[in-house]
Amino acid sequence: MEWFTERYNGSGLEIKVVRKIAEARSIQHIEVYETEFFGKMLVIDGKIQLTELDEVFYHEMIVHVPMMMHEAPRKVLVIGGGDGGTLREVLKHEVDEVVLVEIDRAVIDLSREYLKIDQGAFEDERVRIVIEDGLKYVERCEDRFDVIIVDSTDPVGVSDPLFDEKFFKNASKICDIICCQAQSPIVQKHLFIKLWKNAKAFEKRRVYLSYIPTYPLGYWAFIVAGQVDKFFEERFGKLKGKVKHYNPELHRAAFALPEWLKREIDVSG
Amino acid sequence: MEWFTERYNGSGLEIKVVRKIAEARSIQHIEVYETEFFGKMLVIDGKIQLTELDEVFYHEMIVHVPMMMHEAPRKVLVIGGGDGGTLREVLKHEVDEVVLVEIDRAVIDLSREYLKIDQGAFEDERVRIVIEDGLKYVERCEDRFDVIIVDSTDPVGVSDPLFDEKFFKNASKICDIICCQAQSPIVQKHLFIKLWKNAKAFEKRRVYLSYIPTYPLGYWAFIVAGQVDKFFEERFGKLKGKVKHYNPELHRAAFALPEWLKREIDVSG
Repeated sequence: MEWFTERYNGSGLEIKVVRKIAEARSIQHIEVYETEFFGKMLVIDGKIQLTELDEVFYHEMIVHVPMMMHEAPRKVLVIGGGDGGTLREVLKHEVDEVVLVEIDRAVIDLSREYLKIDQGAFEDERVRIVIEDGLKYVERCEDRFDVIIVDSTDPVGVSDPLFDEKFFKNASKICDIICCQAQSPIVQKHLFIKLWKNAKAFEKRRVYLSYIPTYPLGYWAFIVAGQVDKFFEERFGKLKGKVKHYNPELHRAAFALPEWLKREIDVSG
Repeated sequence: MEWFTERYNGSGLEIKVVRKIAEARSIQHIEVYETEFFGKMLVIDGKIQLTELDEVFYHEMIVHVPMMMHEAPRKVLVIGGGDGGTLREVLKHEVDEVVLVEIDRAVIDLSREYLKIDQGAFEDERVRIVIEDGLKYVERCEDRFDVIIVDSTDPVGVSDPLFDEKFFKNASKICDIICCQAQSPIVQKHLFIKLWKNAKAFEKRRVYLSYIPTYPLGYWAFIVAGQVDKFFEERFGKLKGKVKHYNPELHRAAFALPEWLKREIDVSG
């Protein structure tokens, strides 16, 4: 294969591939490629999960935005995120404990062996890995977390229940802030809106946007809910130098929504 | 052709095409397509210039950002912009005169006949159309403009000289503010940096970013230079209701640059 292609709604992103490095068939079909321009690339069930070139755009924005909105995030739950990128970013904060609940061990195994974007995060003594369905984990969880980050695949296949109302209701009982990747507001508007509605289980919810070149049409939504009024910007001093993309200006900018999206959200209720 | 493909640096954007509506070979190869998801699409020399779905993302951001930074933009020069989208947006402000200098009459003709995104802007009595090379027009121009907007194609072929130092020097003598589309800071970094350096002809220059899904990798840079310290936000009241994408929050947000881009700009000088 010379070009890997991912298509959605009459458009497609092509990535020039040098070779396939690894492949596994667990409950999902996992592939790791070497690409010409984007470095290594992780694909699950035919969908690009990350490339080395732009994974920081995604991981830094899904992690640092909610973490910087919490006064003192010591205990964090990551759902999904088997590649380790989210874990790596969470560990840049002064956390005591991070639980990573990934449904598919093969994602972790392949990522650790071939991608290495976790940069040792999986070995960190503050980290506990649980191989389980995130929905079930949250349902019977008796622990409490400062921040939950839902770094899932698209809501088809194994990640589908993670976008349900029930999940948000259960999550609202065990955390102060939740942050979810919320799909493309353009080509996957119905999924974004579904997630937005279900996040009502939390008293307050906000949408923010980030540019992620290798995701469908490149514009990505995130929903952050719970205690989401504050921004502890002064803590950026400790992050600066460790981040490549995120900064406080970008944090604030991410919450600026275009007129058409504000309207979509207003209408959806 | 079922899929139109535009490639750059080991990546490509595919757009599903229903049919080719029109085509012309002037100094450029101009094509108009009907697409499945994006509405009509204008392609020049193989590169997507606009689609009906996302042209407002581009046109509103290239126009309203510089226009709202000028205290009273009455006289505006548009270089390029033969499709009429930039013209349409400029006319939403209280302008007395707009000169559009387009090198290729065929772009205007095809756009008026098949795209109609100008929504009558070409017939507006405040508009004067000049078919000429923008570089030459600015060189011998004895007029003065409040704002110049450079809505050009990529700096290869006919638009190449528009990215030269000489152009910016000449432009700095005849306007208060200039705004240029400045390519992708990711896949066309060398062009973006060249433009940034040449814009030094103006005392002050700033970069802003906008998301444009059908441009290479979707993240687009603009350079605004001249008297660029102010933002006359109070005038938004008159625009609101006429815009689909732009708003004051997005205006401010566009100037927030990620860490990696700040560094690129610092290094380039």
